[in-house]
Parts: sequence; C-alpha cells; structure tokens
Amino acid sequence: MEQPKKIAKWREKIHEIIYGTHTPEGKLFDIILLIAILYSIIIVMMESVKSFDEKYHQFFNISEWVITILFTIEYGLRIISVYRPKKYIFSFYGIVDLLSTLPKYLSFFIMDSQFLAVFRALRLLRVFRILKLIRFVGESNNIVRALNNSRSKIFIFIFFVLIISIILGTIMFLVEGPENGFDSIPHSIYWTIVTLTTVGFGDITPQTAIGQVIASIIMIIGYGIIAVPTGIVTAEYTATKNKMANRTDSSCQNCGADVIFSDTKYCRKCGHKLDEDEK
Amino acid sequence: MEQPKKIAKWREKIHEIIYGTHTPEGKLFDIILLIAILYSIIIVMMESVKSFDEKYHQFFNISEWVITILFTIEYGLRIISVYRPKKYIFSFYGIVDLLSTLPKYLSFFIMDSQFLAVFRALRLLRVFRILKLIRFVGESNNIVRALNNSRSKIFIFIFFVLIISIILGTIMFLVEGPENGFDSIPHSIYWTIVTLTTVGFGDITPQTAIGQVIASIIMIIGYGIIAVPTGIVTAEYTATKNKMANRTDSSCQNCGADVIFSDTKYCRKCGHKLDEDEK
Amino acid sequence: MEQPKKIAKWREKIHEIIYGTHTPEGKLFDIILLIAILYSIIIVMMESVKSFDEKYHQFFNISEWVITILFTIEYGLRIISVYRPKKYIFSFYGIVDLLSTLPKYLSFFIMDSQFLAVFRALRLLRVFRILKLIRFVGESNNIVRALNNSRSKIFIFIFFVLIISIILGTIMFLVEGPENGFDSIPHSIYWTIVTLTTVGFGDITPQTAIGQVIASIIMIIGYGIIAVPTGIVTAEYTATKNKMANRTDSSCQNCGADVIFSDTKYCRKCGHKLDEDEK
Amino acid sequence: MEQPKKIAKWREKIHEIIYGTHTPEGKLFDIILLIAILYSIIIVMMESVKSFDEKYHQFFNISEWVITILFTIEYGLRIISVYRPKKYIFSFYGIVDLLSTLPKYLSFFIMDSQFLAVFRALRLLRVFRILKLIRFVGESNNIVRALNNSRSKIFIFIFFVLIISIILGTIMFLVEGPENGFDSIPHSIYWTIVTLTTVGFGDITPQTAIGQVIASIIMIIGYGIIAVPTGIVTAEYTATKNKMANRTDSSCQNCGADVIFSDTKYCRKCGHKLDEDEK
Repeated sequence: MEQPKKIAKWREKIHEIIYGTHTPEGKLFDIILLIAILYSIIIVMMESVKSFDEKYHQFFNISEWVITILFTIEYGLRIISVYRPKKYIFSFYGIVDLLSTLPKYLSFFIMDSQFLAVFRALRLLRVFRILKLIRFVGESNNIVRALNNSRSKIFIFIFFVLIISIILGTIMFLVEGPENGFDSIPHSIYWTIVTLTTVGFGDITPQTAIGQVIASIIMIIGYGIIAVPTGIVTAEYTATKNKMANRTDSSCQNCGADVIFSDTKYCRKCGHKLDEDEK
Repeated sequence: MEQPKKIAKWREKIHEIIYGTHTPEGKLFDIILLIAILYSIIIVMMESVKSFDEKYHQFFNISEWVITILFTIEYGLRIISVYRPKKYIFSFYGIVDLLSTLPKYLSFFIMDSQFLAVFRALRLLRVFRILKLIRFVGESNNIVRALNNSRSKIFIFIFFVLIISIILGTIMFLVEGPENGFDSIPHSIYWTIVTLTTVGFGDITPQTAIGQVIASIIMIIGYGIIAVPTGIVTAEYTATKNKMANRTDSSCQNCGADVIFSDTKYCRKCGHKLDEDEK
Repeated sequence: MEQPKKIAKWREKIHEIIYGTHTPEGKLFDIILLIAILYSIIIVMMESVKSFDEKYHQFFNISEWVITILFTIEYGLRIISVYRPKKYIFSFYGIVDLLSTLPKYLSFFIMDSQFLAVFRALRLLRVFRILKLIRFVGESNNIVRALNNSRSKIFIFIFFVLIISIILGTIMFLVEGPENGFDSIPHSIYWTIVTLTTVGFGDITPQTAIGQVIASIIMIIGYGIIAVPTGIVTAEYTATKNKMANRTDSSCQNCGADVIFSDTKYCRKCGHKLDEDEK
Repeated sequence: MEQPKKIAKWREKIHEIIYGTHTPEGKLFDIILLIAILYSIIIVMMESVKSFDEKYHQFFNISEWVITILFTIEYGLRIISVYRPKKYIFSFYGIVDLLSTLPKYLSFFIMDSQFLAVFRALRLLRVFRILKLIRFVGESNNIVRALNNSRSKIFIFIFFVLIISIILGTIMFLVEGPENGFDSIPHSIYWTIVTLTTVGFGDITPQTAIGQVIASIIMIIGYGIIAVPTGIVTAEYTATKNKMANRTDSSCQNCGADVIFSDTKYCRKCGHKLDEDEK
C-alpha cells in the first residue's frame, strides 16, 4: 500500500509542474517548453533554406533528435500525470503534441526516397507547435469576447464579400477573357479577391477600358466596405469594454441580488440602500 | 365546385412549401434549392476551366440540363402558387429566376457558332443565381440598418474620392506622360484609383522624381481617408446598436406613453410603476 | 432714372438665377452648368486618348469652343451680377472660373509648336472645374466638422508616418543598396511609403534576408497604425454626431438663453421651466 | 567670488535659450535648430543620389562641415549648461546628439577606402536627428495616451498575426514549393506577411489552384482582422477623449469633494450650489 501512495504523490508532483504555473518548478517547465518550441520551429525553418541545410545538415539532424526526445518525454509525462489520459490524448492539444513528436520517428521507418515528399510534409507539421504558444496568452481578454460576439456578423460579411467576388469575377472573365490573363472563372474570382481586399499583386491586370472601369469599381467597393468589419468589431469592443469597466463582484445584503456596476447606490431588485463597504 | 377547392388547397400547400420556412417540407425545399444553386454555380465555374471542360464536357452538359429542368419546375410552381403572379414575374427575384432558367434553352435554339460568344455570356448569367443565397441571410440586422443610414454620406465620400482621383490622375498624366506608361488621362485616373485605394498593382509605376513625390502624396491620402467611411459606419452602427439594445414594444398602462427600454421600472412621463407583464 | 432701375432689376434677376437655388430658373441654371462641367471634363479626358483624338479631333475642337464660349458668358454674367465683383474675381472660385475659361483662347494666340506642351498643361487645368461640383455637395455635414476637429491630430499622424518612412527608408538603403533597386535614399523613402501605406507596387522588392525582415516590420507597422487616423476620425465623428443629435433651435422665454438639447426641461441659465411648445 | 557668479549667470542664460521655449531667444534657437536638422537631413538624402553627388560634391562637403560644427557647438553648450551633464550625455537624446555630430569627424581619421562602407553607414545615422523633431510635437495628447493604454493588446495582436503568418506560410511552402518561387519557409512567411497586410508586392504569386485558394483565405483574413487594432485604438481613444473632455480641477467649497466636469452646477456629494469662480 506504500508503493501506490508514493506513485500517486509523484504523479501529483509531475502534474503540478506540467500543468501548474504558480510554483517555481511549474514556471521553469513552462519557460523551458517555450524555448524548446521556438527552437524547434526555427530549426524547421532554417532547414528549408537550401544553403543552410547543405552547410549545417548534421547540426539540424542532431537538434531535431534532441527536441524529438524532449517532446516524447514531455508527451509521456503528460499522459502519466493527467487524471483522465484518454480525454487528453484525443483533445486538440493532445493531438498537436503527438503530431509534433512523430515526424522524426517516421523518418526512421520510412527510408524510401519516394515517401520523402510526404515525410517532409509531416515533419513540417511541427510548426503547429507554435499553437502551444497561445496557451501563454491570456484568453480572457475583451478582444476575444468582442470577436466572439461579432462572429456571426463577420461571417455574413465574409459571405457577402464572396458573393461580390463571384459576381464581379464572372463579369471580369466575360469582359477581359483568357487573352488578358483571366483564363477561367475561378481564376477571375481569385483576381477579384486579390483586388477587393486591396492586396493587388499585379500578376494579372485588366487591359481593356471596360475592364479597368470595373476594376476601379471593385477597388472602391473594397476600399469602402472594410468599414463594415471595423465598425462591427469597434462597436462590440466598446460595448464589452464599457460593460466590464465599472463592474463589481458584490451582491445585495438584503435580497442577495448581484450588484453589477460599482456605482450602484440602491439594489436594483429590492431598492435596499447599499453600504459603501458592501461593494 | 369541388375541383377548384382542391386546386386552391394544392396551391396553398405549394405556396407553403416554397415561401414558408417553418414547416419541415418548407425547410427541405429551401435546402434542396440552396444545394441546386450552389451546384449550378460550381458547374458554371468548372466549365470555364479549359482542362476540366475537355475532360468532363458530357457530365457538365447533363448536369446543366438537370438543373435547368429543376429550375424550370420551380419557376412554374412559383408562378402558379403565388397570389399575384404578375408582381412576382416583374420583381427583382422573379427576373433573376427567369434569367437563371433561360440560358440552356437558348443554346437549343441558337446553334449558330457565331452567336456562341453572346450565348456564353447568357449562360454565365446563372452566376447571379447566387443572389438567391442572400435570401437565406437575415436582412433585418443592424449592419444593413447602419449602412442604410450612412448611405448618403458614403456616396459623398465616393464622389470625393473620384474628384481627387480625377485631379491627381490628370496631374500624374502631365508629370509622367505617355513615355512612362501614363498614356492617357483616363488611364492615369485608373492608376490613381489603384494607388489611392492602396491596391497597387504595380503594372504602371511613376518613374520621375516629381511623379514619385505626387504618388507618395496620393498613397498617404489614400491611407488616411479610409478613416472616413470607417468612422461613419462605426458611428452609425454603434448608434443603431445602442438604440436596438434593450428596446421593448410596450406602453404605460396609466398614461399610454411608450416604454422604450426593457429595463424601465417607472413610466418616464407619469411615474406610474410598470408591472412585469406589461412590458 | 428709369434706365438704371431696369438694369438693377436685370442684375438682380441674373443674380437670382446664378447664385440662387430656390427658383426654378436657378435650379435649371445649376443643372445646365453641372452638365457643361462634366461634359468639358469628359472631352479633356477623351482628347488625351490618342486613338480617340485622331478620329474625333474636329468634334473635340468644336465642343471645346462651345464650352469655352458658354463658360465665358457665365463668367461675364457672374461679374456683372455680383454685388462686389472684385471680391468674386480674386476669390478661389473666381480664379478657378477664369482659369477654366482661358485655355482655348490661349491656343488662339500661341500658335507656336514650341509652346504646345505648356499650352496642353493649361488646357488640362479645366479639370479643376470639377471642383465646382463640390458646391453641389452640402458642406455643412458632420463629416467635414469631424475632419476639421481632428485636423491637427491627423497632421501629427502624417508627420509621424513621414519620420518613420525617412528612418526606415534610410535603413533599407543601407541594407539593400543600389544593387537591389534601392538606388538612393529618396527612392528608398518612396519605397517605404509605398510599403507602409500597404500599396505595394512591387517594382522594387527587398532581396536580402535582412531587407525582407525589415520590410515585414514596415508592413506590420503600416497595417497596425492605420488604426490611429481611423480611431481619431471615428471618435470625433461620434462626438459631433451626438452633439448634433438632439439639438434644437429654440431659446428660453424668460432669459433668452439658447436651448441646445431638445430634451431640456429647465433653462440652464435661469432655471425657468420650458413649455413643450417653446422648443 | 565674482567670477563663478558670472559664469553661473551665463550658464543659466544659455540653459534658458537652449531648453526654454518661452523667451524670444529660446524660440529663435529652436527654429534655427529645426532648420539645421531639416537641412542636414536633406543634404544626406541628396548626397545618396549619384547624379546630384557628382555635380554638387563640393557643396555637400562644405554644407556638412558647417552643420557638423554647428551641432558640435550645440552639443558642447548643452553639456555646459545642463545641471546634471552625465544624465544628459547618457540619455536617449544625448546619445542621438553625439551620434549626429560624429560621422564627419570620423571621415577625417578614417581615410582608408576599405572602411568607406562602414563610414557611409555612420554618416547616415544623422538621419536619426529627425527624431529631435518629435520634441516639437506635443507629447501630452490623447492619441499617445490611447496607444499607451492599448499597447499590450496591440502586442498580442501582432503576436497573433505572426503565428498566422508562420502557419499559413509553412502551408504555402508545402503547397506551392520552390518551383513556384516559395523557395524556403522563411521566404514563404515573408510572402504571407506581404499578403496578410494587404501590401501584395506581386514578385511571388501562387500558381497552383490550391495555393490560390489558400492565398484568398489569407487575404480575406488580412482584410478582416485589420478591424481588431482599429477597434482597440478607437475604443481606447474614445474613452480617453471622453474622460478628458470637460474635466476641471476644482473641488466643492462645502464638503471638499472633487468637481470632475466643468459644467457641474451642484456638488454631486452634498448638493451645495457651486460658485462660478470656484471651478
């Protein structure tokens, strides 16, 4: 009976280090993990640059192995220490953690040069590890709330942008035609999105007079309707901010109703005069 | 007398399915129509890609016939079941529905290869069917209201943008001239719109020092005045949102004054205490 | 004594037609002038297109003469009918009106082909006639007020944008150098403005790794700081709008103080209770 | 004892001229300094244009010496007249002032042509003198306050933009590959930033269908999320503006409560009627 207790204690300790952020060990673990993630991403990036890969191939290889082993240990400890391992394994972060660990191992089994392309793709999945960084950003801020509130409106806006792009893209295809680079409707729609969002690559440009007039209309539409998402987010954010601004976490002494705003003088439910120290 | 009654019932039933959205049959009809519209648009797009058209020409042809017949039936049922057929036929959606149905039939009568270009254009009109999708988006939201309120201001803004473009485009034509790609005033104005809206294709760029200085001024103007439509829409949207926020449609039982905000406790005119169920 | 009276009456009549907008004749005059301005601008534009000029040179020439004569008559009538002719002649619109009339006459005196370039420039000044169109736009709207209020802040913003462009442009010149297209500091600054305002022509692009990193920083700065003018204009416009929203044009019956807001119940100066019908 | 007093007086006088802005001498000094800074920056810019440098090399050389001597005197006077010289020398502006003075002297000692590149770089540091201009802009305005308040939120936003760029850049590298110009992950990320910020140089563009779909998604994301910094800055600026709007620095004569808004007539705590001159 002694043994399991000891193990339980160990598991608790590990859990505290990995998931906790208040103890010094927990903080240290988070910082080491953060550095490891950033380092692994930089390695993946540098490896894709040919001149670097030729020079430092050996160094990149070793670095990858070190990181893969580190991530494997971390993955193992997470499974051991978590209370419901299955829930973790099939959670979003669980799958990301697994996929971040796999690529190098796969390169061990698949030595065939034909699978190299697929293998390379898998290896690059590790870039998604950067998503772990999001954990370090507080998620409970007003922007996220504002974006959540305006989500449905922004979807309608994007849907509207797409409809405009499809209609105007089709018109541009008819007006300009394949001889001016608008060689199919999907390609014309792509060009319209490029123009409407004011990106403007310039690889395809309208050559006919009518085409340039329509392009001008698309550009002015794009220039103008950016006001819509901006207006939505601004209004939602201002509303969220104001709501949060003078909020308090107290309740009425008389009827127990919650007191939302800090400048409340009387309970909004029973009219009881609130004491200064109650809020 | 039995017959007409039956027909009337049938018409009512069809009307409910086509125009109603609350019964299960109405919902099913809407979803099938939505899929058919999206499918027809995708077919039109894919057909415009040469490599696809060569491979799957037969498949595209059959698909188009199926959709054309479906849309014809739908158009017929709409005319039959609607209370005032003439009003529907000449309404915006009525014309769109007709134009969406026609192209394939026209291809039947016009076999002459000379009319192929015109025919192709007509066929593409079906892309406008996507406008039907707008029906699925609630139109009674605050954004539309805000845009409607700020319409006249946005027109003045667009008018102002056009004046700036005409003046600065003319100056650019004088400064750069045809030797640097600014080969006519309309073309220079087009370039100015491209630059002012921060699209910047880069097919024509100023080459002289003075031209680049003026281009810089155009760009900074364009970068700055985007604030104007954004400011207008944001202000209007915030106002609309606040007005709509906690609105109610009741009135005071005592004096008949309208109660605007749902959190009102006492009538703002006579001070009568409002009942909970009154609002 | 009869004669001068008649002339005075005539002058008054002409003044009413030209400057007034309430009488049917005044409205008609405004519409004719508007069409003439637009027509003259379109002629100038079309004339700059070589293929059009070759075909319709005679037509353009006659059109210009008609418009020049029309504008000359208008200019003459304005001077005759205005109460203080000198003030009009040296006013902004007076000079624009004169400059709009001159070009064609100058082409009469200057036949020398050497002066053709200068002459062409003068002729194009007529485009500025479009500024007359601004007269038709109500100037007393809230946007203009908001822009006026935020003028000084927007100048500081533009000044700040220019400083950033100068510093980052110089750094880009050092990093990329003439071999990558950044052939002088002014040219590099021009490129930085192109990038910062998110226009991005793409005629010059950074080729070195460090150059691309700095370019990325410039782009993100440009993408982010657009929030500043937008924020300023939105805030000013909202403030102006709110101030104007429930404004009234009455005054206190007791002390004569002006009553600004329509929901005022008591005079803010003397405390006199305002009647409903006073507002 | 007379001598030090005289020196102290002199130092005070110089301090007043250099650091003060209220006396006529102080204003004159500021204006001369401003002109000298602008002139030196223009010289540096013009010098970098080859054709100008060849023609006016001698003139540029003399101008630089004049300015260098002027700045040296200014730097010396600043050290002499300031109360704590060490604090000034190691302050931000102290270092900028020194670096602005050095380059021309360094060109005196380093005649070796090999050091020319480094020397040129040092010489260009003088462009940073423009930062001195910021001194002339009032720093206590609401925009700066709003930007300061929203700093942390904007950093999170930039961090979020970078994560999106890294993930989508990697995907684009996988989809398009080196054969379409996306030759390494860092280069792909650079391209993604170019596209996301709606700059769109167009030197690299997606060629595959999937690449263009992902590019469209990147563009729509970039077009949409610009709403976030705009919303933040607008909300913060509006809040700052409202707070500052009609603020006063007085307090109630009766109970001592602070009077926040200048249009207050009665103390919000004790109801005491405030005198006009109290505010």
